Amino acid sequence: MPMKLLITSGGTTETIDAVRGITNRSTGQLGKIIAETFLKHNHEVTLVTTKGAVKPTITENLTLHEVTNVDSLMTTLEQLVPKHDVLIHSMAVSDYTPVYMTDFETVVQTESLHSFLTQANTETKISSQSDYQVLFLKKTPKVISFVKKWNPDITLVGFKLLVDVSDDKLIAVARESLSKNKADYILANDLTEIKDGKHRALLVSDQDVLTVDTKEAIAQLLYERITTND
Amino acid sequence: MPMKLLITSGGTTETIDAVRGITNRSTGQLGKIIAETFLKHNHEVTLVTTKGAVKPTITENLTLHEVTNVDSLMTTLEQLVPKHDVLIHSMAVSDYTPVYMTDFETVVQTESLHSFLTQANTETKISSQSDYQVLFLKKTPKVISFVKKWNPDITLVGFKLLVDVSDDKLIAVARESLSKNKADYILANDLTEIKDGKHRALLVSDQDVLTVDTKEAIAQLLYERITTND
Repeated sequence: MPMKLLITSGGTTETIDAVRGITNRSTGQLGKIIAETFLKHNHEVTLVTTKGAVKPTITENLTLHEVTNVDSLMTTLEQLVPKHDVLIHSMAVSDYTPVYMTDFETVVQTESLHSFLTQANTETKISSQSDYQVLFLKKTPKVISFVKKWNPDITLVGFKLLVDVSDDKLIAVARESLSKNKADYILANDLTEIKDGKHRALLVSDQDVLTVDTKEAIAQLLYERITTND
Repeated sequence: MPMKLLITSGGTTETIDAVRGITNRSTGQLGKIIAETFLKHNHEVTLVTTKGAVKPTITENLTLHEVTNVDSLMTTLEQLVPKHDVLIHSMAVSDYTPVYMTDFETVVQTESLHSFLTQANTETKISSQSDYQVLFLKKTPKVISFVKKWNPDITLVGFKLLVDVSDDKLIAVARESLSKNKADYILANDLTEIKDGKHRALLVSDQDVLTVDTKEAIAQLLYERITTND
């Protein structure tokens, strides 16, 4: 029986002003391959993605939603999560969003730095006169932590991207995320191991850890795990 | 006789760490249309652009160069500017680049804020534990100011994007840029006037100001001005 898959891909951008933004660099390639793997087996895929991400060719069983920032991702997933059997959350989501940007001298001359945390830029394009600027940022809500509240029955696959760490560290961080977010699997990967057509990753569950070496193998492993589990 | 045009399009990204960057949002659409207009008339076009930007179809007279940040743009243009007759610099170039990012509490507890301006992040992915972060940024070199030093004979068209200002302000800012950068034309536009298929812009020279209302009209006007001038 066809399953309803919700897949996220690409990277969010948090706007600083009308022209500048902070972006999580992500090509969307892995999410695309995962989507295509499930589509090939006639499952229904809803892909939530971002403007710059590569997308699969539109087919009958594929629905696309484009989001920009964490806010729009949150609103979109809150609606979609209850309608799906599985969420594979491969999108690179911004962990900080701009609060206020001002020139360095203003910051130096201000008594309480805390005051900047409650300010907001009113100018539409922040001036670029001073030699140094300071940008204050605040943590974004962790979208993944809401998923099981929105749908306790969904199979949740989270992603963790670290840089230049050991497998032990990857597994520890993945297990922490499994428990904190009530996730079923965490795909843990290391940026230094994503290159030259390779993409090494550990699929971590409470019970086991499986290792694969390419995006296609990641997609195939997720497909097998998820459809066998069901 | 065919001219050698150098056109920039898209927007640069300055990296914060291995996964995050500050991006100037720009589709590259205008640069693409300008390039196509000159190609149609059998001129030679070198397009310096960025990953996310839309690109013209590759043809015999078109060469593409992809850059990422201000540094790579600078290096690329330094080589290319002396070999071209005209530079149309429509790329949205980052005016600030990250210096150092740290958590808010560290900033509050540090005596001299100036010390952050000479620090650099050694971690490859900056931690995302604290509720607030502070990013220190410094001004990037103004690439356009080097162009006439690299090639005094090049025809230089600069761009100025402001947000929600009067035409008088647009013209004043454009004239300042004409003189400061020894530019021949500045295409001044206002973000609030770029929507619904329209793109209002003022082409400002020392002598006159011409107003057009679409990307195609901008490209056509630049084509006429530049080829008539020559």
